[in-house]
Amino acid sequence: MTQPTLADVRKLDKSDPLRAFRERFALPEGVIYLDGNSLGALPKLTSRRLASVVTEQWGQSLIRSWNDHDWIGAPQRIGAKIASLIGAQPDEVIVADSTSVNLFKLLIAVTRLHPERRDIVTEAGNFPTDLHIARSVAELTGKRLVTVATDALTNAVGHQTACVVLSHVHYRSANRHDMKAITASAAKTDTRVIWDLSHSAGAVPLNLNADAIEFAVGCGYKYLNGGPGAPAFLYAAKPFLAQLTSPIPGWMGHAAPFEFEDEYRPAPGIDRFLAGTPPILSLLALESGVDLMLDADLPALFEKSRRLFDLFASLVASRCPQLQLVSPKVAQLRGSHIAFAHPHASSIMNALIASGVIGDYRAPDILRFGLTPLYLSYEDIWNAVDVLETIMQTSAWRDPRFARIGRVT
Amino acid sequence: MTQPTLADVRKLDKSDPLRAFRERFALPEGVIYLDGNSLGALPKLTSRRLASVVTEQWGQSLIRSWNDHDWIGAPQRIGAKIASLIGAQPDEVIVADSTSVNLFKLLIAVTRLHPERRDIVTEAGNFPTDLHIARSVAELTGKRLVTVATDALTNAVGHQTACVVLSHVHYRSANRHDMKAITASAAKTDTRVIWDLSHSAGAVPLNLNADAIEFAVGCGYKYLNGGPGAPAFLYAAKPFLAQLTSPIPGWMGHAAPFEFEDEYRPAPGIDRFLAGTPPILSLLALESGVDLMLDADLPALFEKSRRLFDLFASLVASRCPQLQLVSPKVAQLRGSHIAFAHPHASSIMNALIASGVIGDYRAPDILRFGLTPLYLSYEDIWNAVDVLETIMQTSAWRDPRFARIGRVT
Repeated sequence: MTQPTLADVRKLDKSDPLRAFRERFALPEGVIYLDGNSLGALPKLTSRRLASVVTEQWGQSLIRSWNDHDWIGAPQRIGAKIASLIGAQPDEVIVADSTSVNLFKLLIAVTRLHPERRDIVTEAGNFPTDLHIARSVAELTGKRLVTVATDALTNAVGHQTACVVLSHVHYRSANRHDMKAITASAAKTDTRVIWDLSHSAGAVPLNLNADAIEFAVGCGYKYLNGGPGAPAFLYAAKPFLAQLTSPIPGWMGHAAPFEFEDEYRPAPGIDRFLAGTPPILSLLALESGVDLMLDADLPALFEKSRRLFDLFASLVASRCPQLQLVSPKVAQLRGSHIAFAHPHASSIMNALIASGVIGDYRAPDILRFGLTPLYLSYEDIWNAVDVLETIMQTSAWRDPRFARIGRVT
Repeated sequence: MTQPTLADVRKLDKSDPLRAFRERFALPEGVIYLDGNSLGALPKLTSRRLASVVTEQWGQSLIRSWNDHDWIGAPQRIGAKIASLIGAQPDEVIVADSTSVNLFKLLIAVTRLHPERRDIVTEAGNFPTDLHIARSVAELTGKRLVTVATDALTNAVGHQTACVVLSHVHYRSANRHDMKAITASAAKTDTRVIWDLSHSAGAVPLNLNADAIEFAVGCGYKYLNGGPGAPAFLYAAKPFLAQLTSPIPGWMGHAAPFEFEDEYRPAPGIDRFLAGTPPILSLLALESGVDLMLDADLPALFEKSRRLFDLFASLVASRCPQLQLVSPKVAQLRGSHIAFAHPHASSIMNALIASGVIGDYRAPDILRFGLTPLYLSYEDIWNAVDVLETIMQTSAWRDPRFARIGRVT
């Protein structure tokens, strides 16, 4: 493949059907933001709406906003919007709590479908929260947590498996599992699989219903641009819903929260997975991010993600040979971020950030860059690699001020 | 007691040391807001700060704000501020999740201290979330949930009790338990008590350390004015902390979240009760509410709460004899709201709201009014009772449009 030139790259931007979306985000000057897989950028719409939520809805309507501005319906309403992004039915998705808490609730609920089975199966190196939560659920429910390498997954799952929990796209490498095949394979032994979509919702094509995906959780603050620590979502396919009981039966998940009954009756639908009162300000900020994405042509978005990756990979291969690509080259096998390994990844990332290129470092040796088609241009990638090349060629990253580890992202 | 006149009431306002605080809230015109025990009013500070959090911190600093604006330290920092309001040490309180989720985490952690004991004890008519969560925890941990009437509590607690969970101030009646005495009595059999402070934090004097209170959870969106669905807090007395393990060990509660270890090592301190990434926008809105309350003279605040209650009770007794006071007349036995019973409470409350007096209805027959000294005047109480009296005397509440039940608060 011949190397693309800056002129080629600009041509790509010119014909980019998503070009107009960049203007809908508030991005800082002098920064190339390649960390939207950690915290999505701020939609301008969100600032405007949130100001009105605070001053009008909270400030003026006060408690009446639960009805007058339908705060009470927000978890379902935003869930339905996310459903349309991930190929689910509107009443199969709810927004609630954090991904960790949702995974906890769903894992216990799903494990209860097979009380007689022994194992919860997951993958070594899965996102830590998922591993920790799975281990805790195993302890609470008297199961055994089986943590296996990726290539041992198929053999580990069978008639003794109460539940499998996996990340669709890996937070470090961007490796993408074949969610449909794994779910179908597990279903042969009547085994349920829960997918963590944190790095795939809004990043790669998802058709949960069409692919017969049964259960999922996911994150609101990455590709959905929901704001820092935005509430998370939870998906359960309708045929299972009536059998599922949340272990955290808070009042918002009751069939009639305002009857104040001593006995718990779960809400008939997906809202049975609500627990306490949701954080409305963060919740409604998420809605603006989701609304923005609903305006985008999703196939075009995923196509641009693939192209941004290919451009990034190709430029780095020729200009920064010290960096080793660890993400899959085949688009269908990866998410929407790109990861490179280098023994001094932490210092290199600190040097990049100091030069206005924001990605993140994942211990022990990963440089990770989020590729968010709504607000990144091809020229951003070109410029980012320019900076990266300079840092690598001049060894600028060896400056002692870049040695500090522990940046938070 | 002679009835106070409007002149008396105005005199009270004139000499009110908290008078200046009202100006620091954005309150709607033409409304008397007596529902701050359900959703606290909006501090003007919060609008300003939140706009800056959104546009500057999220919009411009993006992911860097976790460090540069100390988002990562917010749960501990705000926890420490709440600690100073409730008589705890700064590192005994953390802000996280919702009250429901915090209660779930703490109840399992505390129950584990006595794995050999059989019962979890609570009170019939406790706030539904607390009952539902306690029942779920009992099921998960193989305990028996014992729900008893208030006067049977002492007898129900003993060597077979793994844990007691009670609300300090009752959400309907405002009855206040003697938290110190109950905790001390339970301690005689080495039994732990968890208190739900949702209706007491910022409402009545709390000295958790001095009263040897061991565990508590509480709400951010009522008297702390943290905004709709604001994150909740969790308190654990330091001597117990090292023995407590959260059942939802999310990555934010790990000793080193950014090492991304497969094995869970709980954070050494109270932050072990963090689970997923916290909703930063809602979290920082809560901080402004707490900051405002930190400016207030708390003894003066509690004294004013007592006086607002006495005024309200006395005016209603003489002018609305149809309403039956159900809250305790003795200040030490109650919280900071006042409740009256009437068979048509729902219609009466709807009529009140239509006239600009906002309280709330609690099924089946309770009119509930929050007394929030930071932004209510004595004259507000006078005017509210004026409206109430008119509604009762004219039977205005019989208008069919007020028959609708199910207002959400």
